[in-house]
Amino acid sequence: MNHRDLDGLPKLVAELLVVRASGHTDDKLREYPNWELPNNQLKELLRKGVGGVILFGGTTLELKHRCETLNQWATTPLLLCADIEEGLGQRFHGGTWLVPPLALGQIFNKDAQKAIDLAERYGRCIAKQAKSCGLNWILAPVCDVNNNSDNPVINVRAWSEDPYIVAKLVNAFQKGVESEGLLACAKHFPGHGDTTVDSHLELPKIQHDMKRLENIELIPFKASISNGVPSVMTAHIQFEEIDKKYPATLSHKVINQLLRQELGFEGLIVTDALVMKSISDNYGSNEAAVMAFAAGSDLIMMPDDPLGTIKALCNAFQAGRIPIDRLHQSLRRRRKAIERISSLEENHKSSGGEFKYEPIEQDDDKKLAEELISNSLIVRNPHKLSSTNSGINLLRVDNINAIRFLSNTAPAIQLPPLAGYQNVIIHRHGVSPWRTTRDNPLDLECLGADSVILQLFIRGNPFNDTKDQQEAWSEAVQQLQKEKLLKALVVYGSPYLWEKLVPVLDPHLPAVYCPGQMPNAQELALKSLFRSNIPLNTTKGNIHKAFTD
Amino acid sequence: MNHRDLDGLPKLVAELLVVRASGHTDDKLREYPNWELPNNQLKELLRKGVGGVILFGGTTLELKHRCETLNQWATTPLLLCADIEEGLGQRFHGGTWLVPPLALGQIFNKDAQKAIDLAERYGRCIAKQAKSCGLNWILAPVCDVNNNSDNPVINVRAWSEDPYIVAKLVNAFQKGVESEGLLACAKHFPGHGDTTVDSHLELPKIQHDMKRLENIELIPFKASISNGVPSVMTAHIQFEEIDKKYPATLSHKVINQLLRQELGFEGLIVTDALVMKSISDNYGSNEAAVMAFAAGSDLIMMPDDPLGTIKALCNAFQAGRIPIDRLHQSLRRRRKAIERISSLEENHKSSGGEFKYEPIEQDDDKKLAEELISNSLIVRNPHKLSSTNSGINLLRVDNINAIRFLSNTAPAIQLPPLAGYQNVIIHRHGVSPWRTTRDNPLDLECLGADSVILQLFIRGNPFNDTKDQQEAWSEAVQQLQKEKLLKALVVYGSPYLWEKLVPVLDPHLPAVYCPGQMPNAQELALKSLFRSNIPLNTTKGNIHKAFTD
Repeated sequence: MNHRDLDGLPKLVAELLVVRASGHTDDKLREYPNWELPNNQLKELLRKGVGGVILFGGTTLELKHRCETLNQWATTPLLLCADIEEGLGQRFHGGTWLVPPLALGQIFNKDAQKAIDLAERYGRCIAKQAKSCGLNWILAPVCDVNNNSDNPVINVRAWSEDPYIVAKLVNAFQKGVESEGLLACAKHFPGHGDTTVDSHLELPKIQHDMKRLENIELIPFKASISNGVPSVMTAHIQFEEIDKKYPATLSHKVINQLLRQELGFEGLIVTDALVMKSISDNYGSNEAAVMAFAAGSDLIMMPDDPLGTIKALCNAFQAGRIPIDRLHQSLRRRRKAIERISSLEENHKSSGGEFKYEPIEQDDDKKLAEELISNSLIVRNPHKLSSTNSGINLLRVDNINAIRFLSNTAPAIQLPPLAGYQNVIIHRHGVSPWRTTRDNPLDLECLGADSVILQLFIRGNPFNDTKDQQEAWSEAVQQLQKEKLLKALVVYGSPYLWEKLVPVLDPHLPAVYCPGQMPNAQELALKSLFRSNIPLNTTKGNIHKAFTD
Repeated sequence: MNHRDLDGLPKLVAELLVVRASGHTDDKLREYPNWELPNNQLKELLRKGVGGVILFGGTTLELKHRCETLNQWATTPLLLCADIEEGLGQRFHGGTWLVPPLALGQIFNKDAQKAIDLAERYGRCIAKQAKSCGLNWILAPVCDVNNNSDNPVINVRAWSEDPYIVAKLVNAFQKGVESEGLLACAKHFPGHGDTTVDSHLELPKIQHDMKRLENIELIPFKASISNGVPSVMTAHIQFEEIDKKYPATLSHKVINQLLRQELGFEGLIVTDALVMKSISDNYGSNEAAVMAFAAGSDLIMMPDDPLGTIKALCNAFQAGRIPIDRLHQSLRRRRKAIERISSLEENHKSSGGEFKYEPIEQDDDKKLAEELISNSLIVRNPHKLSSTNSGINLLRVDNINAIRFLSNTAPAIQLPPLAGYQNVIIHRHGVSPWRTTRDNPLDLECLGADSVILQLFIRGNPFNDTKDQQEAWSEAVQQLQKEKLLKALVVYGSPYLWEKLVPVLDPHLPAVYCPGQMPNAQELALKSLFRSNIPLNTTKGNIHKAFTD
C-alpha cells in the first residue's frame, strides 16, 4: 500500500457508512435525539465523504426537503434509505401506510394470484412515494419466515409462515420496487423468524443447522437473490450450529462462506443497526464495524460513533487486518448499486434548483391501501353492535405516544363515542386496569362501565420484549363476557392474539380482526361492527366541535 | 349602485374574509379536518379574492412552504395570521414556545422594568419567527384583565390581574411586534377576563356597566389604541348592561359606538371565530357575519361557510341593509394595514423564486425562553428530592394527545425514571384514578406506589369548560401527604391551582410552580427538585435505549 492510498483512505472508508438522521430539518424536532445526528455533525460527515443516510420521522414534505439538503452537503452520490417496510407512511406523515406484509400471506392462502399482484403494487407504491421524496433505497422486503408466533419483533412484518409463499411475495414486492428504479433490501439474513428474543435488547441464539436453514429460512433469500435483489441486510442473531462464536452480522462463516460463496450473492451486504444492544454491548460499535466488514459486509448501518468507526476501519486496513482490496471491492459494489438507481440523476438535478412539493399520496395509493384492508379483514356477526347510554370504548395501545395511528382524528377514538361509548385508553404508562388475579384480571370497578367495546392494538414492536404477550387478554375477554359487559371486540395487528381469542369468544359477539392499525383500517373495522342505522359521521356538530387546543 | 359595482362585489367582499387552513400542505395531515379547508376549496376561495388565512398546525418548515403556496394562489396581498399568543412554537413545531403572558405579570410585581423589557422581547421573538415563516399578522396581545381566577379560557393567557400592568405589558409586546414590521391584534374587546363560561361552548353573559368597564376592562384596550395597535378582535360575550340583545361581536353599541366612536379606533376590527358555538348556534355563521359587519367589524374570522358568507354579505349590500360605503371603508382599512407590513414585499418576491428554509429558533430565542422560565419559577425546598427504588412519577395532563409538550423526549417523562420513579400518566381518557369519596379521593391501590412525584399540567384550555377545576387536587395532595407518599409536587400552568395547594403543603416538601408547560420548563423545574448528586443525563445507556418504534 503506498502513501497516497493512505491519504485518501478515510474518505473512501466513509463511503461505506450509513449514518442516521431525522427527516426533520430542525435539530429540535428530532424524535430520537440521542440517535439522530445534529445538522452540524451530519454536514461534517457528509463533507468527509459519508455515503449513506438512514432517515426516520417527519412529514413527507420535510423528508423531501431533507433529502435535497443532504444531497447538497454530500461529496458522493448518496444512498438515502428508510425502514419503510409497510409504506412511506409508516415512518413519514403524509405517506401511505399499508397493512403489514403478513396480511398478504393470509390473502395468498385464499387467492395466490391476487396476493402476488397486491405485493407487486405494494412494492411499487412504497418505491414511488419514496422516490418522490428523494429516497432511493428501501430497507425491505423482510425475507424472514415467521415460524414462531411468539417472535416479539418480526411477527406481522414477515409475509408468511410458509417459506415458499414468502419467496413468491418478496419477489413480487421487489419487482414493484424495481419498476420505479429503486433498490430493495432482503433482510434479515440468514433468517430472523424463529426467535423469541428481541435482538434490539439481547442477542438471540438459535440452534438451527444448515439442513434446517436450507429447508426453511434460506428459501426466500435464495429466491430473492436469483431475482436480482441488489442488497441484503444481516441479522443480529447467533446460529450456534454454524458459528459457535459470532452472531451472523459478524460471522465470516455466515456472510462470506454462506451468503457470498454458497449462495453466490454479488450485491451489497449491509449490517443491521450496529447500535443494537445485542451487538454494541458485546463488541462495541467500532470494533463491531471492523468485524462485520472483515466478515464480508460492505456497508455499516448506524454506527454509534461514525468518526470512530472510520478511524477503526482505516486502522484495520493499515494494519493489514483487512486487505485493502476488500475496500475497493465494497466500493465497487456500492457504485454498481448506485448506477441501478434511476432517480439519482433527477434528484441531483432537482437539488440544485427549485423546491417543488405536491402531496405524495395519490388516488391509486389510497385505493391500494383500502383494497388491502378490505381483503384482510375478518368480521364475525357484522352490523350487530347497538348504541348505548353509558358504555365505554376500551382501547389498548402500547404507548401514550402511539399518536401515529391514534390522533384526535382517529376513527378508533372518534366513532364509538358517536354511539355512546366513551373513550378509555389503556397504555403502558397509564393507571393499570389489571389486578393480580389471573382468572378475573381486569379491575372492572376501576373501569366503571355497563358495556364495553374492546379495541386491542397489539403487534410485535421493537424494544418491547415480550411484555405484550404477558397481558391476559384471553382471561379478560372471558371475564367481560361472564359479566355480560362485552359488546364487541376488535384486534388490530397480531393474528396470533386473534387466534387465541377466537376459541373463547361468544359465537354471537360482533368481532373483527384487522392486520393493520392505521386510521382507514379502524374506520372499516368499526363500520363493519355497528348497526347500519347508527349515524357515524364525524361532522362539526358531533365530536368535532373543538377546533383548537 | 351601478351594475359594475355589483359585478365585482363578491370579489371585494371576499377580501374581508379570513378562512382557516392547516399549516400542513397535505390535506390528510390536517389536525382539524372539519374546520380546515382542503386545498381545492382553499385555492378556489383565494382565486375568488379571499384576503386572509388563519393557520393552525404543522412544523415551521411546512408553515413557510404553506405561506408561499397561499401567496401564489392569492389574487390580493394576503393577511396571514395565527393564534400565537405564546410564541410560534405554541402552534407550529420548531418555533419557540414561551411561558404564558401571566408569568410576565408576576415578574412585573417584582421588577417592573425587567417585565417590560421581557414583554418587548417576547413580542419581537414571536414576530421575527412568524415573519421568517411568512405570517404577517399576530393574533395577540390578549388585552383581557384576568380578574376571575375561575375563567376557564383566558386564565394564564392574560398578562395580569391588574389593568394598568396589562396596559404596560401589551404595549411593550406591541412595540416588539412592530419592530419586526408585523401587525398585532388587541383582543378580546371589550374584555374577556371576567367570565366563568367558555365562550367556545356557550355565550357568557356579564352584567358590567360602562363605569365598571371604564375602571377595569377598557384600560388596556385604550392604552393599546393610543399606542397605535393596528387591529382589535371582538369577544363573543354579551354585556347585558350595554346591549341587552347582542353579544359584543354583533353589537353596534359595542363595536361602532364604543370602540369606533368613543375610543376612536380607526384600525381593523376583526370578529373572533364565527364558528364558536356561542355565536353559530344562535345566529348561524352567515347571518352572524352580516350582523358583525353591520355592527362595525371589518373582517370576518373563520366563517363556517365562506362562499355562503360572501353571498350573504353581497345580498346585504345589494338589499341596502348595509351601505356600500361601509364595504369600501373596510377595504381601505385592510389595505392600510397591509401597507404597514414591512415583510410583505419580500414574501411576495420570495414566493416566486426558490424555497429556502433554515431552522427558525436562534440562540437569542432560546435564551429568552429560558430567562422567562427561570424568572417565573417558584421553588420550595430545592435539591431535596432523593431517588427511590419503587416510586411513581404521576403526571396529570388533559389529553392523551397533549403530545406537544409530552412527547417521548419530554423531561417530565424522561427524568424521574432516572431516579427510580416510573411514569404513570393520568388523562381524561384513561383509567380514572379517582374514587367518589371527597376526602381521600385518589385510588391509591390502583396506583400501587410507595412514593410519588406529582406533576400537574393544568391551565385554562378551550373546549374544556370547568372540568379541570372539578378535580380534587387539594384533597389528593393531603391524602398523599397523610399516607407519607408524596415526595415532590410540580404545578405547570395555573397559578391559582398553586395558590390553592400551597396552604395544604407540608412546609418541607420539595415543590415547584412553573407557569410554562413546555419541555425546557419541565427540565428546569425537575432539576431544581432533585438532589444534585443524582445523575439526570438522558444518554443512550439510560432511558433512551430505544431507537425506533
